Amino acid sequence: MLFCRLFSTSSASHLIDKSKFIPHSGFYPKGYKVGALASGVKKAGALDLAMVVSETAASAAACFTTNKFKAAPVLVDKATLQANNNAGIRAIVANSGCANSVTGEGGLQDACKMISMVDDSIGVHNSSKNHSSLVMSTGVIGQRLSMNKILPAIKELAQGDHLGSDHVHWITCAKGIMTTDTFPKLVSKRFTMGGIEYSLAGLAKGAGMICPNMATLLGFFVTDAPVEPSALQEILSHAVSKSFNCISVDGDMSTNDTITALANGAAGGELITKLHPNYNILEHEVTEFAKQLAQLVVHDGEGSTKFITLRIKDALTYEDAKKVASSISNSPLFKTAMYGEDANWGRILCATGYAGAEVNPMKTNVSFIPTDGSEELKLLVNGEPQNVDEDRASVLLKREELEVMVDLGTGGGESCEFWTCDLSHDYVKINGDYRS
Amino acid sequence: MLFCRLFSTSSASHLIDKSKFIPHSGFYPKGYKVGALASGVKKAGALDLAMVVSETAASAAACFTTNKFKAAPVLVDKATLQANNNAGIRAIVANSGCANSVTGEGGLQDACKMISMVDDSIGVHNSSKNHSSLVMSTGVIGQRLSMNKILPAIKELAQGDHLGSDHVHWITCAKGIMTTDTFPKLVSKRFTMGGIEYSLAGLAKGAGMICPNMATLLGFFVTDAPVEPSALQEILSHAVSKSFNCISVDGDMSTNDTITALANGAAGGELITKLHPNYNILEHEVTEFAKQLAQLVVHDGEGSTKFITLRIKDALTYEDAKKVASSISNSPLFKTAMYGEDANWGRILCATGYAGAEVNPMKTNVSFIPTDGSEELKLLVNGEPQNVDEDRASVLLKREELEVMVDLGTGGGESCEFWTCDLSHDYVKINGDYRS
Repeated sequence: MLFCRLFSTSSASHLIDKSKFIPHSGFYPKGYKVGALASGVKKAGALDLAMVVSETAASAAACFTTNKFKAAPVLVDKATLQANNNAGIRAIVANSGCANSVTGEGGLQDACKMISMVDDSIGVHNSSKNHSSLVMSTGVIGQRLSMNKILPAIKELAQGDHLGSDHVHWITCAKGIMTTDTFPKLVSKRFTMGGIEYSLAGLAKGAGMICPNMATLLGFFVTDAPVEPSALQEILSHAVSKSFNCISVDGDMSTNDTITALANGAAGGELITKLHPNYNILEHEVTEFAKQLAQLVVHDGEGSTKFITLRIKDALTYEDAKKVASSISNSPLFKTAMYGEDANWGRILCATGYAGAEVNPMKTNVSFIPTDGSEELKLLVNGEPQNVDEDRASVLLKREELEVMVDLGTGGGESCEFWTCDLSHDYVKINGDYRS
Repeated sequence: MLFCRLFSTSSASHLIDKSKFIPHSGFYPKGYKVGALASGVKKAGALDLAMVVSETAASAAACFTTNKFKAAPVLVDKATLQANNNAGIRAIVANSGCANSVTGEGGLQDACKMISMVDDSIGVHNSSKNHSSLVMSTGVIGQRLSMNKILPAIKELAQGDHLGSDHVHWITCAKGIMTTDTFPKLVSKRFTMGGIEYSLAGLAKGAGMICPNMATLLGFFVTDAPVEPSALQEILSHAVSKSFNCISVDGDMSTNDTITALANGAAGGELITKLHPNYNILEHEVTEFAKQLAQLVVHDGEGSTKFITLRIKDALTYEDAKKVASSISNSPLFKTAMYGEDANWGRILCATGYAGAEVNPMKTNVSFIPTDGSEELKLLVNGEPQNVDEDRASVLLKREELEVMVDLGTGGGESCEFWTCDLSHDYVKINGDYRS
């Protein structure tokens, strides 16, 4: 049996205490019930089926992988949203343990059967035969889902007493989509718009195979704000471009990556359209929220010991800034240097130079920015290497969080923030040794 | 002091016996003297200065890094070849231990001083003040070269009895440019053209930071065939595109990469121009030769335990085939799977899908091709996962050499060969721990 890395739960040790990333309470949006159970697809009774159900039809939006090999749930969800014609979406079901990817026509039928079972179980009677739910899968590639396990489990999850709206239900739901993740990724927040209090909750799975364009990533946001579907899609696309498409664990990108959003309007207020004066507020709230969730994915990068913020400044274009950030974040030499706590700016410069972006070598600056607000440590100023205080560099590099600033000196003034992690022995162990 | 990975010689253990890649004899071209000595730039008296001198002015050509941060020797050599106006080049000097990169105006002057010292030492009296030699450097970034060590050493190397034309001189020369390399990379061969016997010799340094577009790579070919300079440049560019630009160790690309070629015509015969009937013979010979040398670089990939040939078939264009090969070869998930001897075709497929090339998912095939000529092991046929004989897969993956075939099924019929290695614990050790 061949299977994807995503199948196994890592047994490698992690040096960082990641329990601090798990919330003990939250602000959850009205009108949703969530939960998870163990369908039996994953071994040993692990949670592997998660669901979120909106009491009423919600506006929906999604961003999908750009991989040419798209898994069945990706193809089916795309079609569902296209056919939906603003009728709204009632639920999202997500399973881990099997990605339903490279599974041919049968896999597409399996994904549709999952959705139909959700629709039936929550009492959607759709005369148009269009789907009213979305489906996501993550796990083994090239293997069919066990329909005889998944379908009864969906019914049980939807109709039993598994779903609820308390913190414990949300945490359980986040656990239901974990693969090699070492902690459930859940964030929530309250914000005010037009005098009304709204909530946003989001969860994600990540771990390895994370890179620009949302690799091996499942996630969804839900809110009780009322948002018109096309406005929700624009907001989600913008938020993803500044968050999930600005992170890299290992530069790989999966066949299944999907981020969806639901907005059911349960908290009331005016419908947010693209022209509504509060559109920008909502876009800002969702974008900052998405960054928070995306950063959790980097914090759980396979085997990672460092969380690194890359701040690229004065690029000719935003795309150029992102190219440079992506190039640095995917450089194994940079990532191993960070793991080795080595202030090796030559590797940062090399990766900057081959990114394919405009750079002014004579005006390029590279610094480490301490996260405690103390003075930056300049490594390169206008293309000239600095005499670096090695002791201070060593102190900064020993910290769990570090910021690297690269100023390209082009005069273009464009910038980008990007988050990545180091490349450790544990990464090789998790991805190279896990079958042994 | 900050320095580049290239500085240290690895102390990590290597499981593979690489002494088999070191030749015990060779066919060396007429009219050249080569050698190396220890200038003192590298510590502990290691060889760090290599030179090749042609008895007569030779046609010269070069391919350089495309990194935006170009080291001083790269900039100086580019200018030298442009100004040369077919007057010919007499020598190449190459040093290891210091890359003379990100060293500003002073670094450019240092590179010029090295060349002038070579020219003076071998008795070139060039009234035009144009350089008659090329210079290459590899090692520490951001540090000035010790001119007080390098300049006398150049004179000593050129005028003492260090240079010669025997096998031992060639091996010594190859050792002079090693950094983290675990063995000197030297190849030579004889070929016949127009009834005359010619020789080709080439040497390279590599190890880490190798990726498409010639990363941290110094190399040069010399031949005793008579070749017109622009024909030599075309032949070299073609050969490099099929060899050094088709290898990847870690996807990084340095500021110093340079491959040069000299052709002094010492074996006689007709001058090979682009229109000469033997042009294609020479191009073929040089290209196959370059592949051999480039493959040695992959065999010495930092920490590598596997040598992997990627054969991409039926791409829409050659560029697409190369994109797919490059994407697979730079995927940490693929590389760790190979290290872990895991027949994980899902990772091959993922990297194929995000390469940005045209792919027909329903007609994609993936196989392992055994190097012993036995039947291929089909993993994916027309997009359908195969029931794989895991025992046979395990046997194939335990071997040091493996070939992976990916057929993109586009109908375009274009193909490419590419060479890469795995990503091991030793890679992380060499690049992350070496300062500890």
